Amino acid sequence: MTSPAVVDLLGLLAYGELASFGHMAADAQNAPSLYDKAQMSKFATVEHDNYNSICARLTALGVDPITAMQPFSTALDAYHAQLIPSNWLEGLVKSYIGEGIAADFYREVSKYLDKETAELVEEVLTDRGLADFAIERIRQACDGDSVTAGRLALWGRRMMGEMIAQAGQVATHRNALAELFISSEPNELSAEDVTGLVNRLTVGHARRMDVLGFAS
Amino acid sequence: MTSPAVVDLLGLLAYGELASFGHMAADAQNAPSLYDKAQMSKFATVEHDNYNSICARLTALGVDPITAMQPFSTALDAYHAQLIPSNWLEGLVKSYIGEGIAADFYREVSKYLDKETAELVEEVLTDRGLADFAIERIRQACDGDSVTAGRLALWGRRMMGEMIAQAGQVATHRNALAELFISSEPNELSAEDVTGLVNRLTVGHARRMDVLGFAS
Repeated sequence: MTSPAVVDLLGLLAYGELASFGHMAADAQNAPSLYDKAQMSKFATVEHDNYNSICARLTALGVDPITAMQPFSTALDAYHAQLIPSNWLEGLVKSYIGEGIAADFYREVSKYLDKETAELVEEVLTDRGLADFAIERIRQACDGDSVTAGRLALWGRRMMGEMIAQAGQVATHRNALAELFISSEPNELSAEDVTGLVNRLTVGHARRMDVLGFAS
Repeated sequence: MTSPAVVDLLGLLAYGELASFGHMAADAQNAPSLYDKAQMSKFATVEHDNYNSICARLTALGVDPITAMQPFSTALDAYHAQLIPSNWLEGLVKSYIGEGIAADFYREVSKYLDKETAELVEEVLTDRGLADFAIERIRQACDGDSVTAGRLALWGRRMMGEMIAQAGQVATHRNALAELFISSEPNELSAEDVTGLVNRLTVGHARRMDVLGFAS
């Protein structure tokens, strides 16, 4: 019997990949060149490949992927609705920063997963070139253009806040998930553990903002 | 040496698949259920798989796919810009009708292609379930709802006009392509042949409108 928390984590991750697929495919339409459009479209399909792998794992565990994803669609849709990129560069920042926070979060929780699930999660989190692509394009656009850099930095800072807001929503409604990684005591959320997790994610976020040349 | 017309046909088809991928992935975000969103996202990735196959063929022919696609991006982007679905059902009608017209067009020109290219085109045109999915959803939504049916029929009728308008643009600017399928005489466009092609495409379009329960 698979723990409800593992099913939740896989459901959340599956929907996250499906949503990222759709948003990255839409972002690709804002690309300034056919080459960049093709590249971003390819990165979007990587998200869908990941989604397929997670669905296959859920099915193997005897869980319907749609049922597993359903509880997380509202929170993730709200996250994306708050952060619709208005141009190509905002889309790149969103993908790079968002994928980074998600990867950090899943690496935090991987220690609570069984070996096979943890390996799948690690596989799915592996960057397939999106980070380098985004970093190069963003740095290039910001080079000598402090207005663009300032706007994108502000946009990048918003991501972390929106993610924490939605994570709070999810944690409130999915006890199994919250308990898995925040407290070793069932039915008890430790405030220190929440603070510790958020702090670690914030450090990772600040590092990525720094890579882009932004103050976080 | 591959004929410029074959390179044009593959470039047009490749960009068509890439554009459809992006638009279908965006349409998926309007789905009324998670199941439908997952289905439409999957259909979008089929377009991207097709795009990959055509790019591989272009590369094998010694042609850079980006270079081959470039001449057609303006016309195809204009087509899509004129036909941004405002809801899920319009997206479904657009995909079903648009894919159908494109498939009819490519089946018309396949006879001018070398065997290997023609087989690839046939493979790429094979419906992977999108048609049945779209037909079922559209019929269901229109059943007993003449307002929705009327609006979608109007929307479906617009597609053919927009396609012909953009095809005219392409034919004007790409002589090699126009000559391939419209006239057996080089450098000479036969008005009868143009009319014949459009008539045959219109018949196919009317048949699909009929399948949806719409008067064309």
